[in-house]
Amino acid sequence: MVLLLSQDDIRSLISMKDAIFCVEEAYKSLSTGEGYNPQRISIEKDVTGQTLIMPGIIEGSIQSIATKVVSVYRKNPQKFNIPAVLAKIILQDINTGEVISIMDGTYLTTLRTGAATGVSVKYLARKDSEFLSIFGAGAQSQAQIEAVYWALNQSLKRCTVYDLNQTSMRNLKTTIEHRLGIEVKISNNPQKLIDNADIIVCATSSKDPLFPGESVKPGTHISSIGSHLPTHRELDEILLNMANVIAAGSKNACLNEAGDFIIPINQGKLDADKIINIGDIIIGKIQGRDSEEDITVFKSVGIALQDVVVANLTYQRAIQNLTGFEFKF
Amino acid sequence: MVLLLSQDDIRSLISMKDAIFCVEEAYKSLSTGEGYNPQRISIEKDVTGQTLIMPGIIEGSIQSIATKVVSVYRKNPQKFNIPAVLAKIILQDINTGEVISIMDGTYLTTLRTGAATGVSVKYLARKDSEFLSIFGAGAQSQAQIEAVYWALNQSLKRCTVYDLNQTSMRNLKTTIEHRLGIEVKISNNPQKLIDNADIIVCATSSKDPLFPGESVKPGTHISSIGSHLPTHRELDEILLNMANVIAAGSKNACLNEAGDFIIPINQGKLDADKIINIGDIIIGKIQGRDSEEDITVFKSVGIALQDVVVANLTYQRAIQNLTGFEFKF
Repeated sequence: MVLLLSQDDIRSLISMKDAIFCVEEAYKSLSTGEGYNPQRISIEKDVTGQTLIMPGIIEGSIQSIATKVVSVYRKNPQKFNIPAVLAKIILQDINTGEVISIMDGTYLTTLRTGAATGVSVKYLARKDSEFLSIFGAGAQSQAQIEAVYWALNQSLKRCTVYDLNQTSMRNLKTTIEHRLGIEVKISNNPQKLIDNADIIVCATSSKDPLFPGESVKPGTHISSIGSHLPTHRELDEILLNMANVIAAGSKNACLNEAGDFIIPINQGKLDADKIINIGDIIIGKIQGRDSEEDITVFKSVGIALQDVVVANLTYQRAIQNLTGFEFKF
Repeated sequence: MVLLLSQDDIRSLISMKDAIFCVEEAYKSLSTGEGYNPQRISIEKDVTGQTLIMPGIIEGSIQSIATKVVSVYRKNPQKFNIPAVLAKIILQDINTGEVISIMDGTYLTTLRTGAATGVSVKYLARKDSEFLSIFGAGAQSQAQIEAVYWALNQSLKRCTVYDLNQTSMRNLKTTIEHRLGIEVKISNNPQKLIDNADIIVCATSSKDPLFPGESVKPGTHISSIGSHLPTHRELDEILLNMANVIAAGSKNACLNEAGDFIIPINQGKLDADKIINIGDIIIGKIQGRDSEEDITVFKSVGIALQDVVVANLTYQRAIQNLTGFEFKF
């Protein structure tokens, strides 16, 4: 029997706090070698859309195999009124190969992408951070803000948001103020977001850097999770060269996919040796932030191991709570 | 809604004749360029088992994306009384990326692996072929024999089988005689299989060549679908050098995975240029068998495009027949 879990099931089973814990385990497994995260396969059809096939395995304490099939069709919302990013996760028993669960991956993708920023905030942001700025009010933004909120143990005071779409900003403000009880400011001035932030989150599909690196204040932590294409970037090389720490969810994956790194490296403007895996900070192999003045940068294109751990915990919870629907294939 | 299709559903929806038609389309798409079949990802856990992640896309008339998650855990039957090969197929709408169907892939894998041999028989075996020999009486063998039977328009007269496992041979004999009404002979002498065959199918997990190539008669067609590991082979280099045609389901995939080719090429005993894609014969770009005396060889390690076309047709039939179970993820 295969346990099927809908998005509603998953929302009832797993929280952002859980997801941050899971993604931390995923990054750890990459650094200890217990996790294996092959380069994902991209299936593209002209310019309409892209499907990413993301398998991963974690041995040791997690003992799980999962594959995510995730599609990105940017025109879905306007053409078909369905999300641009759609996903399913297939979870296997590591001892037999049997598929034990298939679950919605759309919400889990957003959750674990938020959690990636959450882990980066936990390990790299200043402990006294109170002000968050976020570029982008799209599908990922709510989870990004919630992740920062939980990673700071609820001490986040205010969030400022910038987007070209006014409706998206207003909707995000309403949702976040209702859910977290913090102030959300809408801004049409990107520079204000830089000036008033302890933490900056970039969650856009921008092709070009969102702000000039030199305008970033000492002590700021920046998390960029928006772009995952070699031709796109949210961060410029000035910021990356100013930064005291550049950590990636997976350095390998970012060097394959993230224009933020690929473009300046190819231009000879960034030394790839400066980039580390955040897992190496988590397991204590590398020192993270060194002072209150450090600028720290986190970049993630998303890796399958995040999905493996989150899907595995969701499945365990579903079994405990008798949630889901069993189907005999 | 996602349409879930069980193995029972699939058996009621699609026949071996359908599968042969589908696999022919898949091979065609590889040669026309309408199909894209990236190298599959292998996830391995020590020596216990292996999971293959196989995505593919076909544009043109088929318009379909599918990914198969297939695991091979050789000890499953004896340890857990479940099949060694287990699979699920995830089918997407090419225009939105949405998953529209998830189906059992275990039976479809066997069916389309049989159909691969069927296509090779249709295009490469002598038209007057009547006698089949098969090495291996395992999980793949029944479908292999059925595929040869249908590819020869039911003119197959007799099948001789060789396996180390006597029970498997007896079970296969009973099943095939019941289903197809042809004579099945059990043999403990591999040389007899070579001497009395128009068509030889190799469906084993053998590490070493099953028979000496020089013993093969002129006019024979050989299909090898058993091994898909660079260290394993069913055919020796003598046979490959004798052969007038060596066709692969996918030459690329075989050069990555099939020891039958990789071992002699690395030893300088086989010229890779001799290997062609069977799709090139199907679309008429390359001539296949030239005379009744030709020896023809077909090798397949299995490619995702086979699954894409078979899964797509199964889904279309399910919609027409109102078969399956709809689930809202």
